[in-house]
Amino acid sequence: MKLKMKASALSQLARRTGPPPISWLMQLALSRPKLISLAAGFTDNESLPVEEIRETLAEILRTRKTGQPALQYGSTQGDPVLRKLTAKYFQRLDGGTGSSRAYSPERMIITNGSQQLLYMTTEALCDPGDIVLVEDPTYFVYLGILQSRGATVRGVRMENDGLDLVHLEKILESLKKSGELRRLKALYLVSYFQNPTGITTSFAKKIAALKLLKNYERAAGHPIYLLEDAAYRELRFGGEDVKSALAAKEYSNRVIYAGTYSKPFATGTRVGFGWLPEPVFTAVLRIKGNHDFGTSNLLQQLLARALASGRYQRHLGELQMRYANKARTMRAALREHFPNQVQWQEPEGGLYFWARLPRNVKSGMKSKLFQAALAKDVFYVPGLLCYAEDSTRRKPDNEMRISFGSASDENIREGIRRLGAVLKKFV
Amino acid sequence: MKLKMKASALSQLARRTGPPPISWLMQLALSRPKLISLAAGFTDNESLPVEEIRETLAEILRTRKTGQPALQYGSTQGDPVLRKLTAKYFQRLDGGTGSSRAYSPERMIITNGSQQLLYMTTEALCDPGDIVLVEDPTYFVYLGILQSRGATVRGVRMENDGLDLVHLEKILESLKKSGELRRLKALYLVSYFQNPTGITTSFAKKIAALKLLKNYERAAGHPIYLLEDAAYRELRFGGEDVKSALAAKEYSNRVIYAGTYSKPFATGTRVGFGWLPEPVFTAVLRIKGNHDFGTSNLLQQLLARALASGRYQRHLGELQMRYANKARTMRAALREHFPNQVQWQEPEGGLYFWARLPRNVKSGMKSKLFQAALAKDVFYVPGLLCYAEDSTRRKPDNEMRISFGSASDENIREGIRRLGAVLKKFV
Repeated sequence: MKLKMKASALSQLARRTGPPPISWLMQLALSRPKLISLAAGFTDNESLPVEEIRETLAEILRTRKTGQPALQYGSTQGDPVLRKLTAKYFQRLDGGTGSSRAYSPERMIITNGSQQLLYMTTEALCDPGDIVLVEDPTYFVYLGILQSRGATVRGVRMENDGLDLVHLEKILESLKKSGELRRLKALYLVSYFQNPTGITTSFAKKIAALKLLKNYERAAGHPIYLLEDAAYRELRFGGEDVKSALAAKEYSNRVIYAGTYSKPFATGTRVGFGWLPEPVFTAVLRIKGNHDFGTSNLLQQLLARALASGRYQRHLGELQMRYANKARTMRAALREHFPNQVQWQEPEGGLYFWARLPRNVKSGMKSKLFQAALAKDVFYVPGLLCYAEDSTRRKPDNEMRISFGSASDENIREGIRRLGAVLKKFV
Repeated sequence: MKLKMKASALSQLARRTGPPPISWLMQLALSRPKLISLAAGFTDNESLPVEEIRETLAEILRTRKTGQPALQYGSTQGDPVLRKLTAKYFQRLDGGTGSSRAYSPERMIITNGSQQLLYMTTEALCDPGDIVLVEDPTYFVYLGILQSRGATVRGVRMENDGLDLVHLEKILESLKKSGELRRLKALYLVSYFQNPTGITTSFAKKIAALKLLKNYERAAGHPIYLLEDAAYRELRFGGEDVKSALAAKEYSNRVIYAGTYSKPFATGTRVGFGWLPEPVFTAVLRIKGNHDFGTSNLLQQLLARALASGRYQRHLGELQMRYANKARTMRAALREHFPNQVQWQEPEGGLYFWARLPRNVKSGMKSKLFQAALAKDVFYVPGLLCYAEDSTRRKPDNEMRISFGSASDENIREGIRRLGAVLKKFV
């Protein structure tokens, strides 16, 4: 689907907004029902809390007294009860050690999934030509958002515990030298079980990154924000939770935290949330007023009641066990079927394994490998899609994101078996 | 709340995005519970379909088979069943005379209220400096959207049956002469029971406007769209429905239609929809992917089932009767209490009366009249807020939007009595 560029009335933003990178993959899956998709970032169907949501909604709508407010407009900022519960919940998750101000419900905005918060924050910060640093690789939909705003993107290399700080400093230094630092607005971090690599950034690295950014603010002439995308945070099934950047007391006025209730509860409910410092908070709140003047009150009250009743927490416990099992299934299948030359790391949460092939084996959409996998009715997200356009390096093309989120145990085993058989022909 | 402009990292868009014009009015209402608000565009609390929604959701969530898909991600474009039902419903409303292509579910996008469609369409069409024509006065939140995009706005005068076509042509001609026509992207029309005036645009005027716009496309060098905001269409309680611009067969590829299920059913559910011609359709669909990759599936399936079961239609019938009564109550109160020098028109639907005072009586936020009304614990939306910044005319400051949407019958009577008493001192 190409946009007719000539003699159209479209804006620059529309012209820069590309097709979603994996829409054709999803189309493919729909058109070939036998295909095993290890590509989708969908969550597990069987685990969706149908009963819990039925009960919670029935409680809300039992009387007109509780039902009416849920069916009326709310405020643009979001339901005060949901904000309060969320603030309490996440301050506790962070060990209760951060400043209470950092977690204040007054600094929160409820959004349509965390995606809308990413979008609006980027609207509030980025003019065409502005720079955002991202992990290399990173969440491909966010790359699309940056592209639509005409932002320039630089990828920061990753290590097993998150950002390569030496590389981050090198990039900051080179931007300073080239005079581009004044265009640098933010560092975007998918900090928990990163999409696509599954890597979690340590708290120490978050603090170190914030400190580094702060050091360059003088030269930038304005604040440089850390946009922490914590979409997968609660999908942990191993190890200990890591504190969010909000817990970095002296830096919390540089942290924009984007969280969501969609993934850990029900993706069909689309409720996200975020904490933002001024003046970004006021800017995003106004933008939200223009977008939709507030997320559905019914969905917000559903989440608030699920949290207050403990249904949310109980369901999350079950969900974590379920994903732990699915990850185990995938790990066992990878060990059995993948050739030794393919490297992969075991995630402690989230939905993805990230596999690295030998450098000479291409995994992109047009590669023989990808086509051979398709011919065997299995597919994955090519790593190539997760890399920003960054003139300072070539995009790696030998990786794959493999999701255990939506596939059944049987399909995980069979999918990895097929993929392994294909891989053995190429490595 | 002023944004700190110096040394902030905010984008041009953020700097252009003003505070919502009536947020302080709403704050006022919250802080003074005795205040009778004739300002809010909220819908009637008592009419919210608590039982219907409880039953519909219980049906959806009764089994995992129907419950799971409602709680999972859907497509960015929106639920196919809801699109199909909506297409059928609105083609029938339009008398079934338009081309079926114009109403095709394939050209539809489901959004978070019609507001999101207005926002995304404007993103897709307007660069800073581009021009949009609006009715004079018009929906103030849309003026805020245009301002945030840096668009230039020109107001087209209105007559009792909609746009003043002579004035529209005059503006088009002057834009042609000044060479600005190539910046003209759209004409925005709140075509049913307009917010704020209550005026409905006749079908003949819609066709005439489309024809006029078409005549200037050659000089513009690109299509000029009619953005029809039909948010209040179904809130008709008198007279006959008017066909939408989609029914103007030869022009339907220039019509963007924005509709909503929020106002006629439950504002807390935030489901809107629109039909868009290419290439705007593809651009907006991509933008929606970046905003939130799809409206809540649960809310969409709620609406789809409410439509399919007839619950939506039955509730709408009751709602129309209810608003008819409330409008009658307000009309009677206006006749009894407003001085004769104040002109107002009786609406056949929607939520608003629009009153015009003698020219020398100011009604703005800082006016003695507004302050005197506040002192008597009643307030309205000053007409001034509904006028675009347009250097070719002075903003009228002698009008008021008075809403019967959310106030009770008793508050309507008492509010108009108080307002009438204040008015008598000033006219």
